[in-house]
Amino acid sequence: MVMKTTRKQNYPAWYQDVVSEADMAENSVSPGCMVIKAWGYGIWERVQHILDEQIKETGHENYYFPMFIPLSFFQKEADHVEGFAKEMAVVTHSRLINEDGKLKPSSPLDEPLIVRPTSETIIADSFAKWVKSYRDLPILLNQWANVVRWEMRPRLFLRTREFLWQEGHTVHSNSLEAEEETKRMLEVYKNVSENALAMPVLQGRKPEHEKFPGAIDTYCIEAMMQDGKALQAGTSHFLGQNFAKSADIKFVNTNNELEYAYTTSWGVSTRLIGGVIMSHADDNGMIVPPHIAPYQIIFIPLIKKADDREKIMEYIAKLQNELKGKTAFGEKIRVKVDGRDKPSVDKVWEWIRKGAPMVCEIGARDVDSDGLMVKERIFFGMPEGKKLMKCNEFTAQISERLEFLQKEMFEKAKKRLENNIRTDITTPEQFAAYFANSNEWIEDDKKGKVAFVRGKWCGNPETEEILKSMKITIRCLPFDQSGTAGKCLLTGKDATIDAIYARSY
Amino acid sequence: MVMKTTRKQNYPAWYQDVVSEADMAENSVSPGCMVIKAWGYGIWERVQHILDEQIKETGHENYYFPMFIPLSFFQKEADHVEGFAKEMAVVTHSRLINEDGKLKPSSPLDEPLIVRPTSETIIADSFAKWVKSYRDLPILLNQWANVVRWEMRPRLFLRTREFLWQEGHTVHSNSLEAEEETKRMLEVYKNVSENALAMPVLQGRKPEHEKFPGAIDTYCIEAMMQDGKALQAGTSHFLGQNFAKSADIKFVNTNNELEYAYTTSWGVSTRLIGGVIMSHADDNGMIVPPHIAPYQIIFIPLIKKADDREKIMEYIAKLQNELKGKTAFGEKIRVKVDGRDKPSVDKVWEWIRKGAPMVCEIGARDVDSDGLMVKERIFFGMPEGKKLMKCNEFTAQISERLEFLQKEMFEKAKKRLENNIRTDITTPEQFAAYFANSNEWIEDDKKGKVAFVRGKWCGNPETEEILKSMKITIRCLPFDQSGTAGKCLLTGKDATIDAIYARSY
Repeated sequence: MVMKTTRKQNYPAWYQDVVSEADMAENSVSPGCMVIKAWGYGIWERVQHILDEQIKETGHENYYFPMFIPLSFFQKEADHVEGFAKEMAVVTHSRLINEDGKLKPSSPLDEPLIVRPTSETIIADSFAKWVKSYRDLPILLNQWANVVRWEMRPRLFLRTREFLWQEGHTVHSNSLEAEEETKRMLEVYKNVSENALAMPVLQGRKPEHEKFPGAIDTYCIEAMMQDGKALQAGTSHFLGQNFAKSADIKFVNTNNELEYAYTTSWGVSTRLIGGVIMSHADDNGMIVPPHIAPYQIIFIPLIKKADDREKIMEYIAKLQNELKGKTAFGEKIRVKVDGRDKPSVDKVWEWIRKGAPMVCEIGARDVDSDGLMVKERIFFGMPEGKKLMKCNEFTAQISERLEFLQKEMFEKAKKRLENNIRTDITTPEQFAAYFANSNEWIEDDKKGKVAFVRGKWCGNPETEEILKSMKITIRCLPFDQSGTAGKCLLTGKDATIDAIYARSY
Repeated sequence: MVMKTTRKQNYPAWYQDVVSEADMAENSVSPGCMVIKAWGYGIWERVQHILDEQIKETGHENYYFPMFIPLSFFQKEADHVEGFAKEMAVVTHSRLINEDGKLKPSSPLDEPLIVRPTSETIIADSFAKWVKSYRDLPILLNQWANVVRWEMRPRLFLRTREFLWQEGHTVHSNSLEAEEETKRMLEVYKNVSENALAMPVLQGRKPEHEKFPGAIDTYCIEAMMQDGKALQAGTSHFLGQNFAKSADIKFVNTNNELEYAYTTSWGVSTRLIGGVIMSHADDNGMIVPPHIAPYQIIFIPLIKKADDREKIMEYIAKLQNELKGKTAFGEKIRVKVDGRDKPSVDKVWEWIRKGAPMVCEIGARDVDSDGLMVKERIFFGMPEGKKLMKCNEFTAQISERLEFLQKEMFEKAKKRLENNIRTDITTPEQFAAYFANSNEWIEDDKKGKVAFVRGKWCGNPETEEILKSMKITIRCLPFDQSGTAGKCLLTGKDATIDAIYARSY
């Protein structure tokens, strides 16, 4: 009844199994793209809802910009086009004609259009039109959209040719305010990642060679997956005046002088769902944090005799009604009664694999004793994972309990992260020896597997090649720099910068 | 301060003015596409929220399917491809290369991809995979997405190359259930249109030549704009077994026989916002129904002396706080304090043009007298449009008042619709004479302008040509058929079918 593959046996195969057994998404006939199914999309809707609220609370408004960007727009920012040119979907025709029974593209466009890989260039064009004076600034906007990057090795949620995301774009009258904005939104991402997704992250700056194409600085949040690899979970870019110069975003400042504006951009995507899976799922399938679970509680009637059906269903309806006024995480509790005509044992397993936080079974005896059997997903298989409770006890505790389960998930992931950042590696030899081993599943709370190394980096351009050859990346230069002197883990040269090294998704 | 153009002077120009003066959207550099700005997108978010809730309440779940559809999929359903082939964006390459400093498409795809004009074909492919037995049915799903139809005469919200919509897709084991689904969703559309958008609609079936390409039957809701033209506001299609046959969606029925399934699809788009504008806006700009207004109440501080600022802002904060617990239409009331550093008279006009339901001005004297000046947008310019109220009176009435304003808007639009359906035209001569006149703005509650005609239609194929030559369309064959006999308004032949004739958007 558990996954075909365990994490220990084959972590990548296990990941695919979880996605498929939880019925979250599947590969599409459309090459490299995915179909996001109800349970996966439901999680995304919750993430959207929570993040959208915080984006609005920080003063941003939602807009929508065209997904087609004229090719010439990419001519304007050299670094930007270089970063994306290899993975662009290009629209060249506007109709199909039928020639000898075969459909063919027809009516070529005067200028090809690019399906947005990201929208800096087209939004900068609007900014240039909208911004005249310092009085028009800042402009703080966001859009929820689909984007396309022509990935050659697609993987559900982690890397698909089309994916869903939000991209924030802002313009400011000065550099300081733009940098503050960049960091403010990174903080929002950390908050959503840790509080909603129960996924602890490290915050830092990307090294030069990992920056967003066209950015002055890229900040990021990085999470540790259960195999010790890093997942970039969100990025926030300080673009300086780069896009302002290429798109001509100028304003009259308070000294009545014409000046280029400062812009930022920041985004998170459906990739986060991949992160949630690899942070929390186990060998029995998915585990969804209660805060973002489409349903937090599943009621499954156990009907052994047809005669019992009515009284069990009435009892569940009563229970459901008592939960109506209840909230958790500041929102109404989400409950589903699974009344499908299917063996209840199959239904229970289905919800275990989907990772619903609580599955409650209710049979005739429970009705008579005013009780219910509560199974909590994160404790599945453990003695405390199954509890016979009285209804009033269940409903009285439910809000706290869901919040407790969420906290447990976060604490567990946090312990894993904290226990698996090596800080005792100080020479290139030790470093190479450590990463000579492959990544494996980190058993709960155990140390020692290959994961993150925190150590020195000299910042020399040659380190980029060394990293490439080792298939290691610098995830970030963490915000909490120690400032101490030491030796670069790649070159052995003098170095003061602290870096987080890891393999990554 | 009013629009550059009135409805009477030039209705199409007035429409563009409203969209631009209300800052709802603008034309993009991306040809034929629009940028939806905060106020326009905020309205769409409200519509999405309300409709999404009803889509879920009727048992549907949200999914997401790829926007790229392999060209060969369109080969499968002949009518379908014929309907869309002339307006398709075709992706043919997957990268750009730099040749002599110029970017050019490179890496041609093996099979071109179509940017979805609608998703029947690709979703049918998934259905074929998912459906095995009658036990798997029905599948009821929906997606919120962008779609592309290569319009040659784009118009903001009404007709843009890319637009936003929802498309529902369902599969059923029998024809009856699929037809019921089709009509159920049409009813949901009517409900949202009338209750949320305050836009009354007629419901009916499309004549054969106006059906969705590939459908057995298309049902629609049709609204009357202020110039008497019709706007198709939503459609729901009974697809029979057409797509099931072309995509091979088969299931084992209760008799253990293999059978083709029955599918439906239904959608509404950002076009609805065009409908809201042309239903409600006036010569002073936009008027947004309170139910879908991003903000329902705008507070504008009138600060004449700098010393007064603090006490006025505090007073507004107190008022805002008192509104926090209030609801209208079952949701929290949405309030904005416009504290921008700008002359207050400009701010008031801005919100009038944007059509915020209530604009409240508060100066030092109001603070002293515990009052505020309330301006209701729908009564703007009339004596009752401006009221000095006490704060407690204002907050006590606010929920009811917002719902009253919504009702007033609906009643007004409903009267216009009912008063402007001619039923006394019975011969082709009268019909031709009536439509020989152009459409003009229907002054409030006045009859007599060119709008809708309800009359007989013989249903002969030749009528399609007559309609084309007159630039008239049959909007629908309304559900409430009289069943009486008469003469066709196009051919003079015997006819029993009632049809709604009109010019349309």
